[in-house]
Amino acid sequence: MNGVDHIGIAVSSLEETLRFYTEQLGLIHMKTEEVPTQKVKVAFIDAGNVKLELLEPLDSESPVAVFIEKRGQGIHHVAFKVNNIEERIQEMKERGIRMIDEVPRPGAGGADVAFMHPKAAHGVLFELCEKSKTEGE
Amino acid sequence: MNGVDHIGIAVSSLEETLRFYTEQLGLIHMKTEEVPTQKVKVAFIDAGNVKLELLEPLDSESPVAVFIEKRGQGIHHVAFKVNNIEERIQEMKERGIRMIDEVPRPGAGGADVAFMHPKAAHGVLFELCEKSKTEGE
Repeated sequence: MNGVDHIGIAVSSLEETLRFYTEQLGLIHMKTEEVPTQKVKVAFIDAGNVKLELLEPLDSESPVAVFIEKRGQGIHHVAFKVNNIEERIQEMKERGIRMIDEVPRPGAGGADVAFMHPKAAHGVLFELCEKSKTEGE
Repeated sequence: MNGVDHIGIAVSSLEETLRFYTEQLGLIHMKTEEVPTQKVKVAFIDAGNVKLELLEPLDSESPVAVFIEKRGQGIHHVAFKVNNIEERIQEMKERGIRMIDEVPRPGAGGADVAFMHPKAAHGVLFELCEKSKTEGE
């Protein structure tokens, strides 16, 4: 693990929420993009040493829509920065951690990502996140 | 805001959860302490650029016990590192952010802390956290 890359936050409306993060907290909005595989629109906020990843569901079947329906808006996951994500997934499995994704899949910001099962992590949804070499940090 | 200091995680048992973070994730357990004002026992995990603050309730009236009772174990709050916390609280209030704590109170690790109201932050519990000069980073 090379530190925390970002904290994912489920929101109903990016427009309203961005106003809070930029105008009220005074943080910088880096960019917004859609991640169709996850059915979310994602805005990245620069919080200095980590990013905040605001996740707005694109439709009611998005996992983020299901999360908001059940628990309300709020913190959704924590993503660890890794290298060689396939090896890290194997290592996690060898250490007895149940993975949601046993094969990496495309995430926001051009990253390859894999989620651990929250039951393996005492209720926390952790993501492994490897940035592509072209997008970099 | 000077970045994220820590991510607070509500847990039922520090002993069980620490095994996950140290043996399975391979992270370092820095220290454990009690914060009687919050009725929690707190273990700090070094995640590189931020700390993970594992919070075990000391009794059933602890706010963390109430959180676990309602929502289960999981991510509880995100703490921003600040200087001059009294000034930052004033600034947040002037920008229309409702604070739970309008006056800083003692938190874990010798810090002065103040929480924003999650309704002001679209469902996220944010903490402002100022480290004392003696404890440092």
